[in-house]
Amino acid sequence: MIPVAGSITAPKGFAATGVACGLKKDNRLDLALVVSEVPAVATGVFTRNVVKGHSLQRTMDMVKSGLASAVIINSGNANACVGEAGYRDAETMADLTAAELGCPVEQVLTGSTGVIGKRLDLSAIHRGVQEACANLASSEEAGHLAEQAIMTTDLVPKECVVTFELEGKTITVAGMAKGSGMIHPNMATMIGVLTTDCAVEHDVLSALLKSSVNQTFNRVSVDGDTSVCDMVIALANGKAGNTAIRSVDSAAAQQLQKAITIISTQLARLIAQDGEGATKLVEIQCQGARTADDAYKIVQAVGKSPLVKTAIFGEDANWGRILTAAGYSGAEFDPEKCDIYLGDLKVCENGTALLFDEAAAKVILQQKEVLIRILLREGTAFDRLWTCDFSYDYVRINGSYRT
Amino acid sequence: MIPVAGSITAPKGFAATGVACGLKKDNRLDLALVVSEVPAVATGVFTRNVVKGHSLQRTMDMVKSGLASAVIINSGNANACVGEAGYRDAETMADLTAAELGCPVEQVLTGSTGVIGKRLDLSAIHRGVQEACANLASSEEAGHLAEQAIMTTDLVPKECVVTFELEGKTITVAGMAKGSGMIHPNMATMIGVLTTDCAVEHDVLSALLKSSVNQTFNRVSVDGDTSVCDMVIALANGKAGNTAIRSVDSAAAQQLQKAITIISTQLARLIAQDGEGATKLVEIQCQGARTADDAYKIVQAVGKSPLVKTAIFGEDANWGRILTAAGYSGAEFDPEKCDIYLGDLKVCENGTALLFDEAAAKVILQQKEVLIRILLREGTAFDRLWTCDFSYDYVRINGSYRT
Repeated sequence: MIPVAGSITAPKGFAATGVACGLKKDNRLDLALVVSEVPAVATGVFTRNVVKGHSLQRTMDMVKSGLASAVIINSGNANACVGEAGYRDAETMADLTAAELGCPVEQVLTGSTGVIGKRLDLSAIHRGVQEACANLASSEEAGHLAEQAIMTTDLVPKECVVTFELEGKTITVAGMAKGSGMIHPNMATMIGVLTTDCAVEHDVLSALLKSSVNQTFNRVSVDGDTSVCDMVIALANGKAGNTAIRSVDSAAAQQLQKAITIISTQLARLIAQDGEGATKLVEIQCQGARTADDAYKIVQAVGKSPLVKTAIFGEDANWGRILTAAGYSGAEFDPEKCDIYLGDLKVCENGTALLFDEAAAKVILQQKEVLIRILLREGTAFDRLWTCDFSYDYVRINGSYRT
Repeated sequence: MIPVAGSITAPKGFAATGVACGLKKDNRLDLALVVSEVPAVATGVFTRNVVKGHSLQRTMDMVKSGLASAVIINSGNANACVGEAGYRDAETMADLTAAELGCPVEQVLTGSTGVIGKRLDLSAIHRGVQEACANLASSEEAGHLAEQAIMTTDLVPKECVVTFELEGKTITVAGMAKGSGMIHPNMATMIGVLTTDCAVEHDVLSALLKSSVNQTFNRVSVDGDTSVCDMVIALANGKAGNTAIRSVDSAAAQQLQKAITIISTQLARLIAQDGEGATKLVEIQCQGARTADDAYKIVQAVGKSPLVKTAIFGEDANWGRILTAAGYSGAEFDPEKCDIYLGDLKVCENGTALLFDEAAAKVILQQKEVLIRILLREGTAFDRLWTCDFSYDYVRINGSYRT
């Protein structure tokens, strides 16, 4: 399975579009609609922030039924922290969509991303929903419009498609995402939508999505460390015609898991790479940790350290900051059994400086993708995290986000 | 007790100096020496990073004896992560100092701050120690030289002095500190040295220092979250002539505690204010948390959030980021019972946006000191943290620290 270009409409039976309803300035697309022609099995993974956006709260409630026909997502306004009116506004957005589509309101999922603390402009949403429903299409281009409409400070669209064969049928899985406030993973609003024509039961899809998200999206924007509007939604409408997958242990489930993980990995990497102000994609790996939790703590601490991230921006092989961040991560390890690599270049051995080739290090750090590996000799646990460097532009973008 | 200007030599019986031995470029001061004319009761609080600098490791070992006559600290080189040679280099630095001063080597404490992973230049240290010992003086100016010699990217010296009366004797407590890599507290190398002429037993001084550091230095550069060279050392030589303080519960101990806390608070605030690239001192307070741990988690998360810090740099009243950071901090609270204030201006009530005066908010955020208060209604726990904003200059300074 290799991810290819395409959009959220690639699986059979999905249509989409994106329109400009006026929530964003300059007539930019700000309302995305994804629709399945039959009710789809639906599941989601949501932020663990104790503060939750109202549109997301509503989707957490709706998705319990296990079925959805549409997802409507606005950008430009997070619909968060506006009190009880926020949940009602999300209901109104769903009501308007359900009325246009002629589906039960419970089958319309809602999402919002943007500034916190401002009421949604419902008349703009109303116009936008009407226009979106009138323009739904199953073309690849229609899917691209949906992706553009969920973007905020994203510079590039994040979409991909994977296909595989099952019982002689072609199964297609597609995904789109937005991220971008990603330099410090924990504040990004990350929204992902996955569609597939695979037939799969709700419990299986939920388990597969959760597992894939944990290894991918949650290694960019992190568990318990997420923004108020983060969510990844998956819809599976069964139009491929395979026998519905009923067990997570089946070979078919493993194939679907693989496809979802490939899509999610690609989207997660794109999110990190397109972090606000980012000039590089940085992958942090920790190998040989005593426990999975230790490996996780180390990649988190290193990947979040502004000192590590500014050094990478400056293309400075300052591995002391990497070891220091690992050291304060809370993981237990003996620093005198720790090696650090930048790409394939070992810069620290047994916790001690090596006389490495600074020019070679510079070449590695000048690439658009930088791999940092921390090797311990405590056990066999591994983890990885994708992040980006920390540039002047990050400060510029975030110094005046609301204005 | 009011902190006044002065230097580390203010208490009776202390001398100091700072010299340039060549570890830093441009003939800047890089070796500080503080000496007590009689062996002083000595204690320290040290980094909890699992990686520890070699000079610091040696001081942790030496201070167990409870007595010290001198503290020798170099800047420009952290003496960290260079293998077994690093500890021996610290011993050599102490040996040279002890030989010049004629005191036992065990009574010489060592500290280092600067770049990680490079061996100390011992011939430079040798020359520097000789020059420092020849130039020791008890003048205020000599103390200022010592402070200058421990600074790295610090822009302003951090010193203060407090006096109080005990049994008709004047007790003087002085402190100096360096910080500065402080925009994200957890990577700062923070070194503090306190001197006093108070007579106090070792256990009492240790308890008082630990308690004060926890409320002050550890609310800038944080427990379990510290650089490899962080330390605060206190020396008490008894030259004031008071009866030695033997109990932490005594009125005299409480007075000494108060003096140490005042000094430490002042130094902690100066460290935050002088964070790399900082334009503002930011104090984060959390009131009404259910537990002390919850209050701590909230001030930590808000104070470390690059999105909060860039918004303050941009003078943007983006309180949604403050609530979001509190929300992912791991603290348990009901966001619908949370108010947020910028200075005296309430910007969020019960987790919901208020229509506040943006112009008034701007005026508050334009000040050099900004207070952010998060009020919960969960209990009575309180905590505070000092930090700074996050500017273009932070990225510039840290993008190429080693070159």
